[in-house]
Amino acid sequence: MKKLSILIVLATAIGFAQNADEKQLKKVYSTSLTNGQSYAWLDHLSNKIGGRLSGSSNAAKAVQYTKAELEKLGLDKVWLQEVMVPKWERGKAEKGYFMSGSQKIKVPICALGGSVATKNGGVEAEVIEVQNFEDLKSLGKENIQGKIVFYNRPMQPDLISTFEAYGGCVNQRYAGAKEAIKYGAVGVVVRSMNLRMDDFPHTGSMSYGDISVADRIPAAAISTNGAELLSKQLKKDPKTKFGFTMHCKQYEDVMSHNVIGQITGSEFPNEIIIVGGHLDSWDLGDGSHDDGAGVVQSMEVLRLLKETGYKPKRTIRVVLFMNEENGLRGGRKYAEVAKEKGEKHVFALESDAGGFTPRGFSFDCSDENFAQVESWRKLFKPYLIHYFEKGGSGADIGPLKDDQIVLAGLRPDSQRYFDHHHAENDTFDAVNKRELELGAATMTSLVYLFDKYGTRKPSKIKGK
Amino acid sequence: MKKLSILIVLATAIGFAQNADEKQLKKVYSTSLTNGQSYAWLDHLSNKIGGRLSGSSNAAKAVQYTKAELEKLGLDKVWLQEVMVPKWERGKAEKGYFMSGSQKIKVPICALGGSVATKNGGVEAEVIEVQNFEDLKSLGKENIQGKIVFYNRPMQPDLISTFEAYGGCVNQRYAGAKEAIKYGAVGVVVRSMNLRMDDFPHTGSMSYGDISVADRIPAAAISTNGAELLSKQLKKDPKTKFGFTMHCKQYEDVMSHNVIGQITGSEFPNEIIIVGGHLDSWDLGDGSHDDGAGVVQSMEVLRLLKETGYKPKRTIRVVLFMNEENGLRGGRKYAEVAKEKGEKHVFALESDAGGFTPRGFSFDCSDENFAQVESWRKLFKPYLIHYFEKGGSGADIGPLKDDQIVLAGLRPDSQRYFDHHHAENDTFDAVNKRELELGAATMTSLVYLFDKYGTRKPSKIKGK
Repeated sequence: MKKLSILIVLATAIGFAQNADEKQLKKVYSTSLTNGQSYAWLDHLSNKIGGRLSGSSNAAKAVQYTKAELEKLGLDKVWLQEVMVPKWERGKAEKGYFMSGSQKIKVPICALGGSVATKNGGVEAEVIEVQNFEDLKSLGKENIQGKIVFYNRPMQPDLISTFEAYGGCVNQRYAGAKEAIKYGAVGVVVRSMNLRMDDFPHTGSMSYGDISVADRIPAAAISTNGAELLSKQLKKDPKTKFGFTMHCKQYEDVMSHNVIGQITGSEFPNEIIIVGGHLDSWDLGDGSHDDGAGVVQSMEVLRLLKETGYKPKRTIRVVLFMNEENGLRGGRKYAEVAKEKGEKHVFALESDAGGFTPRGFSFDCSDENFAQVESWRKLFKPYLIHYFEKGGSGADIGPLKDDQIVLAGLRPDSQRYFDHHHAENDTFDAVNKRELELGAATMTSLVYLFDKYGTRKPSKIKGK
Repeated sequence: MKKLSILIVLATAIGFAQNADEKQLKKVYSTSLTNGQSYAWLDHLSNKIGGRLSGSSNAAKAVQYTKAELEKLGLDKVWLQEVMVPKWERGKAEKGYFMSGSQKIKVPICALGGSVATKNGGVEAEVIEVQNFEDLKSLGKENIQGKIVFYNRPMQPDLISTFEAYGGCVNQRYAGAKEAIKYGAVGVVVRSMNLRMDDFPHTGSMSYGDISVADRIPAAAISTNGAELLSKQLKKDPKTKFGFTMHCKQYEDVMSHNVIGQITGSEFPNEIIIVGGHLDSWDLGDGSHDDGAGVVQSMEVLRLLKETGYKPKRTIRVVLFMNEENGLRGGRKYAEVAKEKGEKHVFALESDAGGFTPRGFSFDCSDENFAQVESWRKLFKPYLIHYFEKGGSGADIGPLKDDQIVLAGLRPDSQRYFDHHHAENDTFDAVNKRELELGAATMTSLVYLFDKYGTRKPSKIKGK
């Protein structure tokens, strides 16, 4: 009988806790959807500030704006964390074309982030189209020397995760110039990482590795339509010349900031949970999906916790990282300072996959903690949140990785993300208010659960 | 030992069948995403034909176009099914305004489908704002007589399913005029069924019930921004007058058609599976989401089955229904003819919730058949299809309901649907190619499974 009583008490306690969790999640979603702040914040960040590449005056404005907005929330502490960042500027608009006979056909291009400018009024040369670095090897110096290398491997359309398709292509952009230099190329043009056929070239980071500045060659992205056009032309005439001019420039590193705000934990203030996105964006659009959405959703997490009357047991921090796009200096700096201070981070969540309808999360954590997450799955069902898988988390929180922390990334619907990613059409109008708000609520719900139950092994968690 | 052998054989057979199903689904998704036809069909339907309200010349063009396209697929049979449909025309663009002092403030309005025109150059009257029919009752004739009733109950934003939010509002549009007439109102203005704040008025069907033509009053939709503006003005000045002019007209019924194509089953030709959407649309946009998407996805189901080399055991029909929007005559006619012919329909699937990323299906069927569907759930996991719930199916297939048939509706992400529904911005550019193609593949997969295993009880199904 005693055993039975204990069981009844236990079952009642579990039921009680689940019921409280259901209620809290309902409150969180309802508040986000009826009285949310994220969309108005994004409106300001996108339309009043705009694209905010590291080191730019817009990036500095975004730091000041988000700091001021966090201060209005009545958090326990808001501060800036200094971080030196690279500064690169696109300069005057790029021009690209190819010659079809005596006709000059213009195609939409843009400089890749970090590229050198073209010299002497532009590069014009014959083009060699390749799919990958193996092609370079097979072709050899004799076929590449003095030419422009045109990387035209498209994103694989039959992958359901567009991020996986991106992962299968992005080495062309990141290392394309560095590889082509080895064979004497004079320039690089890369098909935009975009599954849609359109006229937007997509920028993104690239690296020359340890190649000296004098030996660097200019690298541009070409729109998907432009890539198809050029490829077709090359089939007609393999001697076709491609030309482009770019005016970009790399400056000395400058001082910038991560923006941080926190609610100090009431029971375990030394256990830190962070939620964040990156404040910098590429310069072409206004960075609404990448990653204005993640920034305002992360801010909204703390606001929703306060607004719903929840008092965190642990310390909850929002971290708006600087320089994810072309350096990751903000993420590295945050982890470095955390280590210096001996801070214990138990859970970190990043939103950096667009402001689309949330589907769930991917996790980088122990099996025990993943099992803990799985036990919460049913709480998310009413909100159509179903995706809980092991996998990557987020670039900015990556440097915090150790064998204790749970790292997670919000996983929104990915189908339209690369239509906008790093391009002129990553703009506010492409973000749907409800989708953004659902994402913020989903993040808040997971933060709430990790705060309430901690990241201990599931078998030891009360009420589970 | 014999028992063990049987078990091994059985287990092998099950494994083999699942493996074959996995392969077939992969082929279907891959073909849809790499070599799909749905988007090109939608392009034609939306951009070459446009809005296609029942009885219009565009509706007739859509019938001819889709019939011709189905004929190109090499199906076993393609035909038109005659159906008489209502014909209503909007006429010249509507105008709406309210008076603020001596200032005329224009607001975006449109006639509800089926409304009478305004007489004598327009209606202008004082406005009474209400939330529901109970308000009419409380206010009574003395407060309503001679006025325009303004229904301003918004869609509930904290419901996750926007269709549920729509369901909670649509009686204002459908029966608002009929109810207001009882209290002597001279016109009706209804807040658009839209969760977003914008300037698009959303039309949709309405009914006067058995109220005689002479007693009918004009009914318009007002954009969400317009509704907020008007409501604010009424708080300032309850005597504010609202005015509108509309030139719409109801004609005699005209002949139109359902478009039908079929692959005749190789083993059970008398067991019929149908997949469909509705060919008619409202006239304001081009009906891309509602329901061009469902039409082309349904056509694509048959094409994908053929393209992947699958030979259906049962008869698979695509049915493009006419007149879902303002009469459901096509759906009723199809069911009527099926009954007359004694046709046995075993499964019917409709896509009429937009061309957004598919999330799953809702079912109207027996517990046994729902359990059967649930046993297939894991096959859909790689495609992020997770929603399998009992609930509604589709308006057009509803008339087929009996105690044998499985009815199902595709359930795409619903967050953006009502931004476009029945409005000028339901256009081709609002449909994402991949999202549309994923929907077609998801439908094809379920049709394949029902074709292969039938709709018998799960325990009797081979290989399950």
